Amino acid sequence: MTFRATVLTLYPDMFPGPLGQSLAGRGLSEGAWSLEARNIRDHAIDKHRTVDDTPAGGGAGMVLRCDVIAAALDAVADGRPMLAMTPRGAPLTQGRVRELAAGEGAIILCGRFEGFDERIFEARTVEPVSIGDYVLSGGELGAMVLLDACVRLLPGIMGAASSGEEESFEEGLLEYPHYTRPVEWEGRTIPEVLRSGDHAKIAAWRKQRSIDDTRLRRPDLIECHGGAREASPSGAQRKK
Amino acid sequence: MTFRATVLTLYPDMFPGPLGQSLAGRGLSEGAWSLEARNIRDHAIDKHRTVDDTPAGGGAGMVLRCDVIAAALDAVADGRPMLAMTPRGAPLTQGRVRELAAGEGAIILCGRFEGFDERIFEARTVEPVSIGDYVLSGGELGAMVLLDACVRLLPGIMGAASSGEEESFEEGLLEYPHYTRPVEWEGRTIPEVLRSGDHAKIAAWRKQRSIDDTRLRRPDLIECHGGAREASPSGAQRKK
Repeated sequence: MTFRATVLTLYPDMFPGPLGQSLAGRGLSEGAWSLEARNIRDHAIDKHRTVDDTPAGGGAGMVLRCDVIAAALDAVADGRPMLAMTPRGAPLTQGRVRELAAGEGAIILCGRFEGFDERIFEARTVEPVSIGDYVLSGGELGAMVLLDACVRLLPGIMGAASSGEEESFEEGLLEYPHYTRPVEWEGRTIPEVLRSGDHAKIAAWRKQRSIDDTRLRRPDLIECHGGAREASPSGAQRKK
Repeated sequence: MTFRATVLTLYPDMFPGPLGQSLAGRGLSEGAWSLEARNIRDHAIDKHRTVDDTPAGGGAGMVLRCDVIAAALDAVADGRPMLAMTPRGAPLTQGRVRELAAGEGAIILCGRFEGFDERIFEARTVEPVSIGDYVLSGGELGAMVLLDACVRLLPGIMGAASSGEEESFEEGLLEYPHYTRPVEWEGRTIPEVLRSGDHAKIAAWRKQRSIDDTRLRRPDLIECHGGAREASPSGAQRKK
C-alpha cells in the first residue's frame, strides 16, 4: 500500500517544492508515496472562478467559501482522513503523525486569507490541524510539514538503522544531546561517559539527559495535564 | 531597513521554494526582504567535504560536526539573531515571530540527520527553535515556516487592512470563526448576530467565541502556567 497525499490549495505550483528533494523526494520518485496538488479554484462555481468573499459581520481580509471548499473536498473524498491546516486546529503531535503514516494517506486542505467558512467543519468530516502557535500566510507550508513528518516514517524511507524510535517526543521527552568528532574542539570535549564504551552507562546518561533537558526546556511536556496535548489520539505522546 | 534572511543548509536548492510565491514571493521580488541560502558543505575542512560523523557513544544516524557548523556560522555572523531549527528547541511563538520581524533579519541553521553536535550551542550564541512537537527530515521546512511567519508581518506585505492584529495567538487566544456568503448553505446559515449590522454585538460575539473555542480546543493556552510557553520573550502571548 502506497501512502497517497492529495493537497487542495490555491498554489498547486508550490508542490512538491521541498518535498521533491532529500528523503521525501527520494521516496516520491521511488513510489513509496504519491503526491497530487489540486487547485481549489477549479471548483469555483462562477465564471470569475471566485473562491472567497468578505467576512460576514465585517472585518479585514477574505474568507474561503464553504460551497467551493466542499466541492473541492467532495471531488477527492475516498475515506482517507481529511485535514485542514489552520491555526484554530488541534496542535500536530508526533503521535498523530505516526497514526497518519500508518494509514493510506491524507487529503489536506490549505487555508489562505482569513481562513475557511466555519460551516465546512460542521458539514464535512474535516479535522482542523495546526502545526504551531504562530500564523502563516497560508496552509501550504503546514501541509508540507505534515507530509514530511509522515513520509519519513514510511517503510524504507529512513532505513532500518534509523527507525525514529529514539528521538524527540517519542517518549513524551526531548531527545538527548548528540556529540561527534573531533573529541576536543575549542577546548570543549565530548562528555567522558560517551567515550567509555560502557553501553549501559551511556544509555543511562542519555535517558537522564532526556529527562533533564525536557524539565529545563519543555516543562509543559511533563507538567501540563488536562491540556489539548493530552487529547493526542495516540499513546506515543505520553506525559511521564 | 530590509529584513535579511540567511539560511545555512545542506539543501540550498530548496530555497526560495514556496517562499518564492504568494505573499512572501511578492515581498521578495519587491525587495521587502532578502533571502540567501548557503551550503554548509562549503565549510567542510577535508577534501571529501564531510559535514557529519557517527554519534559519540554509538547509535543510528549521523551528527553534524561542530567545527563545520561553527565555520558556516562565523562566515555570516553580523549581529543578526542566529537560530537553529531542532525539535530540542524552544517552541516558536507568534510573540517571538513579531520580535524577529521587527529586527534586521535572521541567520537560520537547518539541522539534518540526528542533529547538531551539542557543543555548538555552548560555543556560539545560537538559539535552538522548534516549530512543533513532531520530527521532520530536516530543518529546511522549519526555516521556511519561520520566515513565512516573519515576512507576512513586514511593512507593506499584508496591506494596512489586514495588520494581523486580530488573529490567532495575538491575545493568547484562538481567532474567532469566520463566515461568508452564501448566507444559507446545505441548510446551515451564518449566525444571525453577524448579519445584524450591530458592530458592538458582533465584536462581543467574536470575543466570546475566541474565548470559548480556546477553552474547548486549546485549554493549554489558558491553563498551563509555568510551562515553556510562559518563557515567550514577548508579551504578545499572554496567558489571560
